[in-house]
Amino acid sequence: MKQLPVLDVSAAICCAPLASAPLSEEDAMSLAGQLKAIADPARLRLLSLMLANDDYEACTCDLTEALELSQPTVSHHMKKLTEAGIVYTDRRQGPWKYYRVSPAALAGLANVISTTSPA
Amino acid sequence: MKQLPVLDVSAAICCAPLASAPLSEEDAMSLAGQLKAIADPARLRLLSLMLANDDYEACTCDLTEALELSQPTVSHHMKKLTEAGIVYTDRRQGPWKYYRVSPAALAGLANVISTTSPA
Repeated sequence: MKQLPVLDVSAAICCAPLASAPLSEEDAMSLAGQLKAIADPARLRLLSLMLANDDYEACTCDLTEALELSQPTVSHHMKKLTEAGIVYTDRRQGPWKYYRVSPAALAGLANVISTTSPA
Repeated sequence: MKQLPVLDVSAAICCAPLASAPLSEEDAMSLAGQLKAIADPARLRLLSLMLANDDYEACTCDLTEALELSQPTVSHHMKKLTEAGIVYTDRRQGPWKYYRVSPAALAGLANVISTTSPA
């Protein structure tokens, strides 16, 4: 597996685990915003496609083809995911923008909503 | 810690981990619906309050007071969380309905979005 550059955006994930303490109004707003960014069928499919690639990276060209979405639609979804810190723009090559998923951001969100089952 | 009744609703969480395979359109719809149910500041706060209680349970009376929400508003949020399989109605006592969080459902969602960081 290739070495990825260290880019820790887990700081972008706002909150302590839900089960650890009652959530403040401010943290609840922030966390809801991040969850809303991924609570969309097209964005979830885009993320799963990117995660299937080497380095969790994809160019907009691959993504429009795979999901039969227009370029502006993919760009809109990527903007929302970027604002939430879930993906970031990696590089450009010719006319194409490359995006990469931040595994730390997804793991951070998972950590916030996960609970330890008492069963 | 008290023994909880076994009530596994993890089957309600639709999908394999995002990073394991590209998500189908149908699974993406289902997963987005479950994430939308929790992607709301009031619902996240309700969940964190319930998770702070013994057995992850709370009555609507406690929840309306703690968050200064009306009874119909709390009932609306609980309906959405119940439909998504995140909470379930536990019991009634007098005029009050009791709800309990399903830790298995939250853990299931966390498992779907979590990735193993290659860092």
